[in-house]
Amino acid sequence: MTIKSANITPVVHGVAKHDRWAVNSHRGGVIWFTGLSGSGKTTLAFALEQALFARRYNVYVLDGDNMRHGLSADLGFSPVERSENIRRIGEVAALFADAGVIVLTAFISPYRADRRRARDACGDAFHEVFLSADLDACERRDPRGLYSRARRGEIPEFTGITAPYEIPENPELIVDTGRQSISDCLERVAAYAERAFVFGSSTIGKPAEIVR
Amino acid sequence: MTIKSANITPVVHGVAKHDRWAVNSHRGGVIWFTGLSGSGKTTLAFALEQALFARRYNVYVLDGDNMRHGLSADLGFSPVERSENIRRIGEVAALFADAGVIVLTAFISPYRADRRRARDACGDAFHEVFLSADLDACERRDPRGLYSRARRGEIPEFTGITAPYEIPENPELIVDTGRQSISDCLERVAAYAERAFVFGSSTIGKPAEIVR
Repeated sequence: MTIKSANITPVVHGVAKHDRWAVNSHRGGVIWFTGLSGSGKTTLAFALEQALFARRYNVYVLDGDNMRHGLSADLGFSPVERSENIRRIGEVAALFADAGVIVLTAFISPYRADRRRARDACGDAFHEVFLSADLDACERRDPRGLYSRARRGEIPEFTGITAPYEIPENPELIVDTGRQSISDCLERVAAYAERAFVFGSSTIGKPAEIVR
Repeated sequence: MTIKSANITPVVHGVAKHDRWAVNSHRGGVIWFTGLSGSGKTTLAFALEQALFARRYNVYVLDGDNMRHGLSADLGFSPVERSENIRRIGEVAALFADAGVIVLTAFISPYRADRRRARDACGDAFHEVFLSADLDACERRDPRGLYSRARRGEIPEFTGITAPYEIPENPELIVDTGRQSISDCLERVAAYAERAFVFGSSTIGKPAEIVR
């Protein structure tokens, strides 16, 4: 992507971020789930959305399926198009975070460079959560039969089979969805989110917390 | 844009729309401001954001300048790129509306087809507000000196000068920002928004309300 826009001055939003946080009683921000297909990103994102919503958080899920029907419906699955898809999601997540919403994103997002760019778009509000279920666990599960299809060569460039997954080097949280139950994982991620988005707290420079 | 995504199943969001509306005490939706450069879209959008936020609405502005720095930073100003910019804004607005937010968009969006596509993306939640200040009024104002530059030929395809503005045929609301004060316009738009997003009401098939 090249920056083509010129002569554009950013307009300051009328409502201050802190005022949004005060009304919501929490900060806005991004929980960026990353992990292999079948590692539980979508399941965990929607479970977390329900859990946080029940506690009166302003929360919303962006997931691959819904994004692909709308904003990214013009994109295919070539490496360049996948990367552009992740770029757009990062930018949309940044807008939601700016609006005071806690946005939960559920995308494989296999490349470090793409995740880094999403982090840069979102700033301090970005929390990368690596669902570390390994290939064996995910392939055994294969909830949508995608691994079988990939093994039969029906899906080109399938992450973990014919395309790489670059493990996060410095995620804010690691959850082993291969060994832990969904409810245990949910409990941990919800507890993390409650700490991360406390209004008034600082999470900048917080070390990674490894949940096994 | 061609739809390239295949084998994608929409995932139902964990939190029902009505539950979001109940918590917010209002519906989510879109106020789509359209009008010439200088017609007051951005000013009115931010003023409305402040007014609604003060009344505890969950509200957010998408404006041309901020979108152009992020999600649409890869797009220039050719007709195709402008159209793609408006398409993306419509899709992002639809996501915000789905999240229960009232999103206010401030874009010239001169073409009926582009506005129609944004409406289609957002469904019933879409409210087109035409700021009907005419070219003379906008050019006299020229807050950013863009009309002078366009007249000198420095900005190609400038709406109203060298590119058309297609007047909305059936907007939900028309506000004459050329003859009315900003505070009068704000009062009318805020009153409209409060009616349009009342939780429990239906605004489908509501006739256009013309405010002069």
